[in-house]
Amino acid sequence: MPKYSVAIVGATGYTGSELVRLLAHHPDVTIDIVTSESNKGKNITDVHPHLLDVVDIELRSVKEISDHKPDLVFLALPHGVSMDFVKEHGLDKFIIIDLSGDFRFSSRGIYEEWYKKTHVAPQFMEEAVYGLPELFRDNIRNARLVANPGCYPTSAILALAPLIKRGLINPTSIVVDSKSGVTGAGAKPKQGLHFPNVFGNFSAYSLVNHRHTPEIENTLQMYTGYSTEVLFTPHLLPIDRGILTTTYSTPKKPVIAEMVEELYHSVYEKEHFVRVFGEPPTVKNIRGSNYCDIYATYDERTNKIITVSTIDNLMKGAAGQAVQNMNIVFGLIESTGLKHIPLNP
Amino acid sequence: MPKYSVAIVGATGYTGSELVRLLAHHPDVTIDIVTSESNKGKNITDVHPHLLDVVDIELRSVKEISDHKPDLVFLALPHGVSMDFVKEHGLDKFIIIDLSGDFRFSSRGIYEEWYKKTHVAPQFMEEAVYGLPELFRDNIRNARLVANPGCYPTSAILALAPLIKRGLINPTSIVVDSKSGVTGAGAKPKQGLHFPNVFGNFSAYSLVNHRHTPEIENTLQMYTGYSTEVLFTPHLLPIDRGILTTTYSTPKKPVIAEMVEELYHSVYEKEHFVRVFGEPPTVKNIRGSNYCDIYATYDERTNKIITVSTIDNLMKGAAGQAVQNMNIVFGLIESTGLKHIPLNP
Amino acid sequence: MPKYSVAIVGATGYTGSELVRLLAHHPDVTIDIVTSESNKGKNITDVHPHLLDVVDIELRSVKEISDHKPDLVFLALPHGVSMDFVKEHGLDKFIIIDLSGDFRFSSRGIYEEWYKKTHVAPQFMEEAVYGLPELFRDNIRNARLVANPGCYPTSAILALAPLIKRGLINPTSIVVDSKSGVTGAGAKPKQGLHFPNVFGNFSAYSLVNHRHTPEIENTLQMYTGYSTEVLFTPHLLPIDRGILTTTYSTPKKPVIAEMVEELYHSVYEKEHFVRVFGEPPTVKNIRGSNYCDIYATYDERTNKIITVSTIDNLMKGAAGQAVQNMNIVFGLIESTGLKHIPLNP
Amino acid sequence: MPKYSVAIVGATGYTGSELVRLLAHHPDVTIDIVTSESNKGKNITDVHPHLLDVVDIELRSVKEISDHKPDLVFLALPHGVSMDFVKEHGLDKFIIIDLSGDFRFSSRGIYEEWYKKTHVAPQFMEEAVYGLPELFRDNIRNARLVANPGCYPTSAILALAPLIKRGLINPTSIVVDSKSGVTGAGAKPKQGLHFPNVFGNFSAYSLVNHRHTPEIENTLQMYTGYSTEVLFTPHLLPIDRGILTTTYSTPKKPVIAEMVEELYHSVYEKEHFVRVFGEPPTVKNIRGSNYCDIYATYDERTNKIITVSTIDNLMKGAAGQAVQNMNIVFGLIESTGLKHIPLNP
Repeated sequence: MPKYSVAIVGATGYTGSELVRLLAHHPDVTIDIVTSESNKGKNITDVHPHLLDVVDIELRSVKEISDHKPDLVFLALPHGVSMDFVKEHGLDKFIIIDLSGDFRFSSRGIYEEWYKKTHVAPQFMEEAVYGLPELFRDNIRNARLVANPGCYPTSAILALAPLIKRGLINPTSIVVDSKSGVTGAGAKPKQGLHFPNVFGNFSAYSLVNHRHTPEIENTLQMYTGYSTEVLFTPHLLPIDRGILTTTYSTPKKPVIAEMVEELYHSVYEKEHFVRVFGEPPTVKNIRGSNYCDIYATYDERTNKIITVSTIDNLMKGAAGQAVQNMNIVFGLIESTGLKHIPLNP
Repeated sequence: MPKYSVAIVGATGYTGSELVRLLAHHPDVTIDIVTSESNKGKNITDVHPHLLDVVDIELRSVKEISDHKPDLVFLALPHGVSMDFVKEHGLDKFIIIDLSGDFRFSSRGIYEEWYKKTHVAPQFMEEAVYGLPELFRDNIRNARLVANPGCYPTSAILALAPLIKRGLINPTSIVVDSKSGVTGAGAKPKQGLHFPNVFGNFSAYSLVNHRHTPEIENTLQMYTGYSTEVLFTPHLLPIDRGILTTTYSTPKKPVIAEMVEELYHSVYEKEHFVRVFGEPPTVKNIRGSNYCDIYATYDERTNKIITVSTIDNLMKGAAGQAVQNMNIVFGLIESTGLKHIPLNP
Repeated sequence: MPKYSVAIVGATGYTGSELVRLLAHHPDVTIDIVTSESNKGKNITDVHPHLLDVVDIELRSVKEISDHKPDLVFLALPHGVSMDFVKEHGLDKFIIIDLSGDFRFSSRGIYEEWYKKTHVAPQFMEEAVYGLPELFRDNIRNARLVANPGCYPTSAILALAPLIKRGLINPTSIVVDSKSGVTGAGAKPKQGLHFPNVFGNFSAYSLVNHRHTPEIENTLQMYTGYSTEVLFTPHLLPIDRGILTTTYSTPKKPVIAEMVEELYHSVYEKEHFVRVFGEPPTVKNIRGSNYCDIYATYDERTNKIITVSTIDNLMKGAAGQAVQNMNIVFGLIESTGLKHIPLNP
Repeated sequence: MPKYSVAIVGATGYTGSELVRLLAHHPDVTIDIVTSESNKGKNITDVHPHLLDVVDIELRSVKEISDHKPDLVFLALPHGVSMDFVKEHGLDKFIIIDLSGDFRFSSRGIYEEWYKKTHVAPQFMEEAVYGLPELFRDNIRNARLVANPGCYPTSAILALAPLIKRGLINPTSIVVDSKSGVTGAGAKPKQGLHFPNVFGNFSAYSLVNHRHTPEIENTLQMYTGYSTEVLFTPHLLPIDRGILTTTYSTPKKPVIAEMVEELYHSVYEKEHFVRVFGEPPTVKNIRGSNYCDIYATYDERTNKIITVSTIDNLMKGAAGQAVQNMNIVFGLIESTGLKHIPLNP
């Protein structure tokens, strides 16, 4: 079988190098071109020395992409930059999987309100498919533009969707308390991410106004049909990879703990990348893998349902999920090239 | 002025050595005797080498304490062991500040339910004063037995008390999501606290049944008069010291963010150890100090009040608060010997 | 092609679970039996939850191994326990790859001196092959008993062997200053490995008497023919995985920096798992992979040759190297099942 | 007694804020002015929020310093900037303690060779006193310009000086293998110090050409009279504070381990800030304190003397030592305001 050819646009960030890590050994895909404006002409191993002897790729300008005619393009670009690429190339030349937030909303209003930016390619927003396979697999199959989900939303939505879909909880009073490793904030050095400022530290940030809030609400609403309201609080964990999300919600009908746990087993039984745990999962149990681990229980005393879910933000929260989406679009087995076993310890 | 003499019972754990760190340079106190059954006969610097040249104390058996007649005894003992000491010695010989959970409840019922233990000295439970100075300073002044608060409760209660006391929030629907460094779990090696199992990791534990739950509820109720219900979820942070607690509650009257922030400024204006911040505080900003930093805000969109508070679990969450209580009992200025500036970075 | 069947004896430690991680997806091997005396009857995922959905193996007693007739047995046992197994089973039933130190010396004298133990199976010491493929590949091919190298020795020997073999340095005045992550000290909780005692800390240990000293000296001597003397100082790094070794030695003939660097390129040119770097390598660039990265230079001012080498102590320093040896013994391509790309970040 | 007034020039870096931490509670000193060009007009707590309620200081331009007439000025400036200040103000207005490397050499040659910079105030180089009190206390007492030592050199020199001074080792064949926490590299965000790039990582850097090499050699030579040659290799530890230095040297006369250990006890017996240990010290045992802990031993097998020494790079390696020097210059007891007990855990 001839292999599919793919392009990675934006190779200097963490999601770019993680895509290379996953695709270098993917049996059905060849990496056709990898671009970086700031490092073009260099070998990718000059920027990411851990890839020495693994790949041997010269970084190119994104302008060369049209010469390459890849089957699919991964956009590992910052928010606000991806839409320029989509505007320029449209959706006819190649399938696009965009890892930024630019196409995660179906209309420009919410995007422009929360991202404080004018959208330059709103004509493609509606066609874009939200790339969370466990919820929207059928739509992804035929998508020309996949909006790869945000890391926090992936962990929250997979945990909350079953509860809302089954009408178990009040969807307008949900608290999502998330904690993420620092790679989620990108590869660019900043004061707040300088090693001595994070080491031994822990903090909350972007209270009440983080851009993943509307993404979580919007997607849950789209999937369940219920109007959803979420209070989302992100925290910065002093680790490199991993997200743990704790959610609190109120049942709208009588439940027991066993019923809640059983629900997750039945919903995710056939999913390769969702593991339902009988106890709260830990971040290290999914490190380097594409798994989302979920635990759910009910506290009778306070009448709350609690979920705890974990993902590797660079895998199921970014590059891993993007490759999962690619597999679906190409009609491959969904776990192809994604069977990385968690690196623990 | 003659100095007060104090005893530290239980010197091998983290709270024991932290008490020594604080008292070694306290201007009005001498450490009379330090006990350890497992290390008696050794010098304390054999067990805690960082104290070399700082103190020179031979560890004794607790049996020798009666020969010493200290003015005050700190019990840095595990839950369930402190009460044996109190039962044996009563409250007439010396003032006791107990850092365990044994005397934090006024009646044995809740204690025995959550601690799964029979209380052997229930006759002293009612007299014991809960040692959170910002709330119960006047009672502490004349106490013979001070129950030093738990670390999680200190961070949660200082954040929630103003809201409930003023009748601002519904006190029966509060979520407390806490994250603690590993010293909070004690000095004894365990599988779950083995370095490779915590490093790069993060997890929730003791969901819905942690023993600090009734302590938070009970204390808030005692202080505010309102019946209080809290869903408390602790998480294990991969750092040594520090707790950050995020709380979520629902206003029962119309509020605005400024009003909430202002409330904390007015309540804690004169407190030496509570600092009200205009932005979410970080754990490292209080490392090694006795401060509790608090931020509070209101999210109009979801109608929730959010607080974020931080303490060093070994200081304001244990030994620091114990010394603060001692200062009050002895009639000293409350911050004496406690002016440690946070170690950041 | 029918698959080879292998056994893993000792599954509760880190090397045991790492072997499972590597062998679960190895194309030419099936895991026939995994043993654990302390956890027999449990599923391996009860002990190592990160392996959930990856493998489904009930842990057995080592006594059942004879019923299984595996082609090869990995001994992931402590020093002093492996030799009991070898004594009992001999070398005729299956090939043995021993990850302990029990068979790394050809005679019992040095072993008993440095390990403070009587060797119970000395008759097999001479036949055992030291399993460092880059140096002893031909002997490994036909071995019945492979003594898998220690983690520190692997990093030191691969760095020093070219210098001594070519007669470039004085082999009796070598300093080896090594730094290792905590998994190198095993999975068993101990005071010195309790999280708060390692976090933010760093220390040297076992000065002048670490058991890897004679292993480094002995192996270099065996390989090069030169009598070798090494001063080895290990340090404990506050990370989970990874060793970095810095060596200092004195040339015995005139050299220049380029010549030294070139030597490593030529020696390791065809090695899949040794990468020669033009700058000092970092631990994270090999995390989770089987690579050994090496940098070497010469300081004219002080007339010293310096090398810096890195390995993942659980991979090239233990389980990865064991699988590499297995591949050689089975006549497979040496990198089969070992192409894990370093997990960075 | 009227207090001395001091100025801190350069308050945004780690040494600047550490000086404030130490001087805020110093009994004989008032902080007169703190300068920062990039943050002038702001309160210091805007830049260093952990100092809230501790100090209340508006940051000024360095230009205002002449209006203040402080008794002493701390220069917490980068290398190459301090000399501009000294050139402009000379040594008649106030005593200067410079924490940069600009005045650590008595002649411009070595400085310009290793720092790759033209020295603009060479006329003051000879008068400057190297501020390592344990070696040069008498000179410091009357100094007008104190060159505060580098962090690595402090840890290496205190360990090596006794051996060379007593003629015990060959001073031209010394290996210094040092490991430092990240605050040693400054507060400015850089790619190599971005949290995900340091976390879980470890590396050597500046091999054979680090600028602390000549500082170590020069100072040892000045103090001992022996021509000294050192091969110095720094490594970056994934922690915030702390240096551990391991040295290797060759005796030039017969020694035994006890003799070596005894030497350190006798040399440092009366020093407040040097603690001689009977076992290798750890970084955490000196965290936040001004101690230098030293262990020394002799390996008969390889005929090498090994030392292990630890300091907190921001304390004895920078601000703490600067305050120690200030105390000497002012004729105060040397440990005044410096009795911080190590923060362990």
